[in-house]
Amino acid sequence: MAETSVGEMATEENNNADALVTSIDPLHPANHICTLCYQFYGHGWVTGTGGGISIKHGNHVYLAPSGVQKELMKPQDIFVMDYVTKQYLRRPPVYKPSACTPLFMSAYTTRGAGACIHTHSQWAVLVTLICEAGLQGDDRGVFAMKEIEQIKGISRGGTGSQEIAEGGRKLGNLGYFDTMKIPIIENTAHEEDLEESMSQAMQEWPETCAVLVKRHGVYVWGKDVAQAKTQCESLDYLFQLAVEMHKLGLKWV
Amino acid sequence: MAETSVGEMATEENNNADALVTSIDPLHPANHICTLCYQFYGHGWVTGTGGGISIKHGNHVYLAPSGVQKELMKPQDIFVMDYVTKQYLRRPPVYKPSACTPLFMSAYTTRGAGACIHTHSQWAVLVTLICEAGLQGDDRGVFAMKEIEQIKGISRGGTGSQEIAEGGRKLGNLGYFDTMKIPIIENTAHEEDLEESMSQAMQEWPETCAVLVKRHGVYVWGKDVAQAKTQCESLDYLFQLAVEMHKLGLKWV
Amino acid sequence: MAETSVGEMATEENNNADALVTSIDPLHPANHICTLCYQFYGHGWVTGTGGGISIKHGNHVYLAPSGVQKELMKPQDIFVMDYVTKQYLRRPPVYKPSACTPLFMSAYTTRGAGACIHTHSQWAVLVTLICEAGLQGDDRGVFAMKEIEQIKGISRGGTGSQEIAEGGRKLGNLGYFDTMKIPIIENTAHEEDLEESMSQAMQEWPETCAVLVKRHGVYVWGKDVAQAKTQCESLDYLFQLAVEMHKLGLKWV
Amino acid sequence: MAETSVGEMATEENNNADALVTSIDPLHPANHICTLCYQFYGHGWVTGTGGGISIKHGNHVYLAPSGVQKELMKPQDIFVMDYVTKQYLRRPPVYKPSACTPLFMSAYTTRGAGACIHTHSQWAVLVTLICEAGLQGDDRGVFAMKEIEQIKGISRGGTGSQEIAEGGRKLGNLGYFDTMKIPIIENTAHEEDLEESMSQAMQEWPETCAVLVKRHGVYVWGKDVAQAKTQCESLDYLFQLAVEMHKLGLKWV
Repeated sequence: MAETSVGEMATEENNNADALVTSIDPLHPANHICTLCYQFYGHGWVTGTGGGISIKHGNHVYLAPSGVQKELMKPQDIFVMDYVTKQYLRRPPVYKPSACTPLFMSAYTTRGAGACIHTHSQWAVLVTLICEAGLQGDDRGVFAMKEIEQIKGISRGGTGSQEIAEGGRKLGNLGYFDTMKIPIIENTAHEEDLEESMSQAMQEWPETCAVLVKRHGVYVWGKDVAQAKTQCESLDYLFQLAVEMHKLGLKWV
Repeated sequence: MAETSVGEMATEENNNADALVTSIDPLHPANHICTLCYQFYGHGWVTGTGGGISIKHGNHVYLAPSGVQKELMKPQDIFVMDYVTKQYLRRPPVYKPSACTPLFMSAYTTRGAGACIHTHSQWAVLVTLICEAGLQGDDRGVFAMKEIEQIKGISRGGTGSQEIAEGGRKLGNLGYFDTMKIPIIENTAHEEDLEESMSQAMQEWPETCAVLVKRHGVYVWGKDVAQAKTQCESLDYLFQLAVEMHKLGLKWV
Repeated sequence: MAETSVGEMATEENNNADALVTSIDPLHPANHICTLCYQFYGHGWVTGTGGGISIKHGNHVYLAPSGVQKELMKPQDIFVMDYVTKQYLRRPPVYKPSACTPLFMSAYTTRGAGACIHTHSQWAVLVTLICEAGLQGDDRGVFAMKEIEQIKGISRGGTGSQEIAEGGRKLGNLGYFDTMKIPIIENTAHEEDLEESMSQAMQEWPETCAVLVKRHGVYVWGKDVAQAKTQCESLDYLFQLAVEMHKLGLKWV
Repeated sequence: MAETSVGEMATEENNNADALVTSIDPLHPANHICTLCYQFYGHGWVTGTGGGISIKHGNHVYLAPSGVQKELMKPQDIFVMDYVTKQYLRRPPVYKPSACTPLFMSAYTTRGAGACIHTHSQWAVLVTLICEAGLQGDDRGVFAMKEIEQIKGISRGGTGSQEIAEGGRKLGNLGYFDTMKIPIIENTAHEEDLEESMSQAMQEWPETCAVLVKRHGVYVWGKDVAQAKTQCESLDYLFQLAVEMHKLGLKWV
């Protein structure tokens, strides 16, 4: 009987890889990423190929490619990585993997996230600029806000997977009288060089579900894509409100 | 003859409950709530699962659930409560009832409303912050504005059901030279705890069609969903204009 | 032979009236008004039933009704008036004619316009507030701007129907170095009471294509609906730019 | 055999010309220009017939006409010019060619661009006004910004067609620590009179992918339409951020 030729093996491998991004289910990660990127473009979060999103689906990590127009993405454009081996299971030849990949992976490994969103939202950038200049207080490395209802949309720790923290303290969402604190890390020349400081911030701030990057944007994660998205929306709302409050001469805390 | 088994009864009950949210009429409350939530998301009123809406249809009160992405809501997600018995006639098992429920009920019982909208609009929040800080005058418990044409879109009392007020005075919409006054109540740690102060504000301010909640948002009602929606739009317009006027150093009254 | 009964006459009249708003042509005034109102709602021009639009089609004047949600309008909702007799040829029984009607008619009779748009745009209102307070100069009755490219989108006189003005001077659009001047009239308690001052402004300012109403909005006309719409867009752009320039401490002229 | 009559020749010429704008491919320049203009209208870039776009496809230059509502454009409305002979291959009789045409041609001839976008974005205009007034430094003829992540979306030279510049220096996109500089030229009474100063700026600033026109807007080009569009988005983002930074009292460099 005929042996399978190398050409046939490559074809079969390609078919398997394509199967990873082929589904009629609109909530399949490959479809969902495209729908969300279109929506995020409308929010001004992924302007001019900036920003991105990743979803973890079992041991498959779905990633938007680098440098593409996010509002035009198709499922075929998406990279898939094996969470355990860190090898690409699918790699569209015409694109480069996103420089955000190690940062998304940090959210999965360090925080047990199920999805992670990166935006270049101007409100996020402006908040880091106000903090950098010390215009809202001396602590320039953290964005803090309290007594705004929308803070209740933000979880402690950013993932609901650990309902009880190590010390036995109950987690859940922030309350109205809690102070929300989001760490701000320095930007680097190359996005992948943020990995170390991002991981460090994730460990030093176990209750945050986001990390602001100075003059750059924000990374927000959640236990699943719905929580990542709604937390990203709530944070963006709070960043915008904070900028407007600052213009009116009002304090955030 | 065969008796109806418990299982069959439960099934029949479920069928009846589902019938409450099943209609091909786009203006049926279950469909209308979904369309409006999608539209409100675009206005920034229900970002990140915040805000909500309720419609009273005869003795059936339709309610959006707690903690869902409002722009993605489906008729099947909606709770239905009996207005008289306050019992749920339909309760989707995967969701929790909205914490706004007692506040929406206050608008129905205290003010004879037919629909009530709750937004987290940043303009509403900013107006309460400006008032709280006393930046537009000493009366920090009320938002007041006059001589802006859009004020004519706001009814006295918020419902057209009582064309003549108790004292025999004709109601109707505010005039251009009237002063619009919207009370501002303190926020609480839990939304349902707003019930008492909200009811009190509704009684103390018989001409208002809305109550602002400090650092939180606004509740707006009307005799029907069209009036609730258009009043909510007019108020949001006035809140935004008020913030812009304040930035320009102009007085609201 | 049977005479036509009164009932049959009324039916025939209704049929004729309905024919005035029934067409499959998307540019037929009855359809076009609905499309434009939907678009204007997105611009924030007709929030909460405010604002409106009218198109003159031969001797038929098409008018959006009073107090309706503009983004939901249907051709059947539209009033049609005979331009010569000023009688309604079609009058939907459930609606009231718009209070803007006499103002739209002024644009037709005084200026030979083919369409007129009325918006409650916040930028228009803010510009009148800045002028009222004398923050951009002593002439509080006119909004003036120059040396902004978009001014070239504004015609002298607002209609292209008279290419040569009475004095033999060529009309056309404003140039970059021309000063655009839009008169501002006082608001009144009732919109129809604006008719006299609006007509007066139209006569005193033969080169304007718009009249601002203090604390209310703007009326913009053109020789046809395309010119009215593009001029309304250009003016709204200029009003917004003017507010932003004012915030930055920059002069309009 | 029958000779071809003049009438038949004219018809054949028209048919050939129409073939230039007839395609079912959504990325064909004639279709793509229409889709993009619709999208740009939503961004506020081409309000009231302002702004425009051109795509070079081989030796065919596609151009949006002058004075049309950009969001309503159809492929049949588009002009096609031969890049070599500068003759129109297709010229819709009802429209005038855009006054931007010589400026788009400059981007093609001077910079080897494949597409060029012109916007009247208010953020671009406000940036030129801030520079003109010397509010961000003494160099009033250039907009400069650094250490903002989105700068990495801007290429050196605006086209990727010359990966190596004349001096052997590698081109590519700007880095985070690079200073982005966009020249600002004076506006003129007639848009076509910008040609000389635009060409001069393109030659004096070989690393820019855009030229700002004072009190007017911006021209942005790229090696292809995707790069022109994403650079235009990134620049618009940076112009908006710059205005917001200025309001907060922050320096751009």
